[in-house]
Amino acid sequence: MTFDTLETPVPLVDIDVMAHNLDRMAAYAASHGLALRPHTKTHKSVHVGREQIRRGAAGLTCATPHEATVMQQVTDDLLVAYPVLGHAKLDRLFSVRDDVALRVQLDSAAAIDQLAAAAVRHDRAVAVTIEFDAGMHRVGVPSLDDAIALARHVHANPPLEFSGIAFYPGHIREPVTSQDAALERLRHKVAEAIEAFTTAGLPPAVVSGGSTPTMWRSHELTGVTEIRPGTYVYNDRTTAEIGACAWSDCAVTVLATVVSTAVPGQAVIDAGAKALGREPMRGADGEGFGALVDRPEVVVSRMSEEHGILDLSKTDWRPSVGDLVRVVPNHVCIVTHLNDVMFGVRGDAVVTSWPVDARGRGYGSLIGV
Amino acid sequence: MTFDTLETPVPLVDIDVMAHNLDRMAAYAASHGLALRPHTKTHKSVHVGREQIRRGAAGLTCATPHEATVMQQVTDDLLVAYPVLGHAKLDRLFSVRDDVALRVQLDSAAAIDQLAAAAVRHDRAVAVTIEFDAGMHRVGVPSLDDAIALARHVHANPPLEFSGIAFYPGHIREPVTSQDAALERLRHKVAEAIEAFTTAGLPPAVVSGGSTPTMWRSHELTGVTEIRPGTYVYNDRTTAEIGACAWSDCAVTVLATVVSTAVPGQAVIDAGAKALGREPMRGADGEGFGALVDRPEVVVSRMSEEHGILDLSKTDWRPSVGDLVRVVPNHVCIVTHLNDVMFGVRGDAVVTSWPVDARGRGYGSLIGV
Repeated sequence: MTFDTLETPVPLVDIDVMAHNLDRMAAYAASHGLALRPHTKTHKSVHVGREQIRRGAAGLTCATPHEATVMQQVTDDLLVAYPVLGHAKLDRLFSVRDDVALRVQLDSAAAIDQLAAAAVRHDRAVAVTIEFDAGMHRVGVPSLDDAIALARHVHANPPLEFSGIAFYPGHIREPVTSQDAALERLRHKVAEAIEAFTTAGLPPAVVSGGSTPTMWRSHELTGVTEIRPGTYVYNDRTTAEIGACAWSDCAVTVLATVVSTAVPGQAVIDAGAKALGREPMRGADGEGFGALVDRPEVVVSRMSEEHGILDLSKTDWRPSVGDLVRVVPNHVCIVTHLNDVMFGVRGDAVVTSWPVDARGRGYGSLIGV
Repeated sequence: MTFDTLETPVPLVDIDVMAHNLDRMAAYAASHGLALRPHTKTHKSVHVGREQIRRGAAGLTCATPHEATVMQQVTDDLLVAYPVLGHAKLDRLFSVRDDVALRVQLDSAAAIDQLAAAAVRHDRAVAVTIEFDAGMHRVGVPSLDDAIALARHVHANPPLEFSGIAFYPGHIREPVTSQDAALERLRHKVAEAIEAFTTAGLPPAVVSGGSTPTMWRSHELTGVTEIRPGTYVYNDRTTAEIGACAWSDCAVTVLATVVSTAVPGQAVIDAGAKALGREPMRGADGEGFGALVDRPEVVVSRMSEEHGILDLSKTDWRPSVGDLVRVVPNHVCIVTHLNDVMFGVRGDAVVTSWPVDARGRGYGSLIGV
């Protein structure tokens, strides 16, 4: 099937690049004795999750109970790396079949209390990892004493089981080559956390970490047992710009059509905020919301919902209305979330496709209440 | 059904506010003799489209052929206000049932040629409006001579039918009270366009305009016959801030749960970029990506995919983990696009729901190719 069979904008996945990305991360984790628990937020697809498990992933990471109910199709070991609060979400979490090991990552007594009550109600053990703030200041307990108090609170609430600690070093956005100082601080922080928990009589069996910019340096963080990378399977412009992958490792492009060249100095494509997301570059130079895969100097400089403005000021290339282009998005996890289907390509041929099974919130059954 | 029956984040629609918004716009258009052709990109729902038609809308506007195939369920008069290019999209457009009047808005000879070829192939008349650039510099022909040449090109390519001109004054982002000068320039531009086409022997039967910031002043643009407002049905924070609606006219809120208060000075909710979109305020003051409906001084100041950071620096309010909040999003058209279902509420009760029928790209049938 040729590209023009598809209605643009549409996400394409180079399946050979994706396979290479999957192999590389599996080999990295294995060579360093790290448990690999890929974050499925990036792909939300049973097909891709299965490929990760087949290559030795220890289990999968989810952001929501809905994602967990989808990913139980391919693994019996799931982490929801997010506090699960409220009856509706807790019920969804506990609808995962009984032989799946569940773990939840959280940072508050209230989240423990709600999870414990649901676990008692469902008579089901749930492992808990306590998230501490490694410097991002988003979620995570800032004080290790408070984190230890939460671990004790878990311990006091069977069938919850304290299984360890977790962090997300999302504050480290420097290019890979400039991360040394930040990584050294993080190394120290992780070691300190492990020591504090161990001294408190709660040695963490699991020390779960990892982020995209630091993904190939996780082994330098002594004591880390598990990593939760997400973006690596597809990669994106941000990941390439910070040096955590090569441009040629970007597996996903958004195929778009040039729809207007009426206004001089620009070309307008049909991939706007509803296809690419309005995600800025972070931690790296680079303007705009995406760049053409074969002309990275041409960026999507402005967007409306269904319009992307290609800035032609840095190129002599002048496209025509009707031309197809392929955009490497800044942030691929958002592109996935905007689509129901990913189309697998090899060269210029569309050779397969798979659904984004966990897109949305799983509310279909409530329509018409 | 109470709010806590729903898994957050989830979009709520106050159905009484929505009905008020629908009534008000229908009355405005009727009182000024303007044909109302609401843009369905905002709601993408058969249910809402039907409410618009029931209140006297002349037809509906779509951004994509996929949206048109959905909206043919409620009207026999559809405008795709976007060039339709490529076999796949043209085939989708012409799959709309025969008794639906189709119009396409475009700005290039290439788009006319492709549409004409498809119209011949399908033996079906299609009306065409030529878009001219009214100052936004996104799409639209900058020169009226060139626009007239395109109209002649349409005329020379039956079964296409030249039906008039169109514009989108998206550059006018000033608050309603500061638009006088910009509106006067636009008034002049529209009059000039009508006169040029008329002089050329192509008097435009349709003069199609309108944007959200200018929506209540469309009647001041002499010669305009039709308006295509989208956002008015739901409204959003941007619309309220520029004064095109009241805060209490914002029908859509995203219900979210406070998931972490671990980091001092902020509270984290489960509505991030995947629930709210990363849409800045435009044309009005206001930071962040949304604000609490009952505490507009509390904004979502930062976001990750599934995290929204509430800035608590301007409030004494200190929420607890597990609390529910309602966020008025900056840009509601993106929120709709991120969801499959809208939940209709009245007061604190969830009383109905409807699907976002035209969300996505309609690729379901291609899965597994």
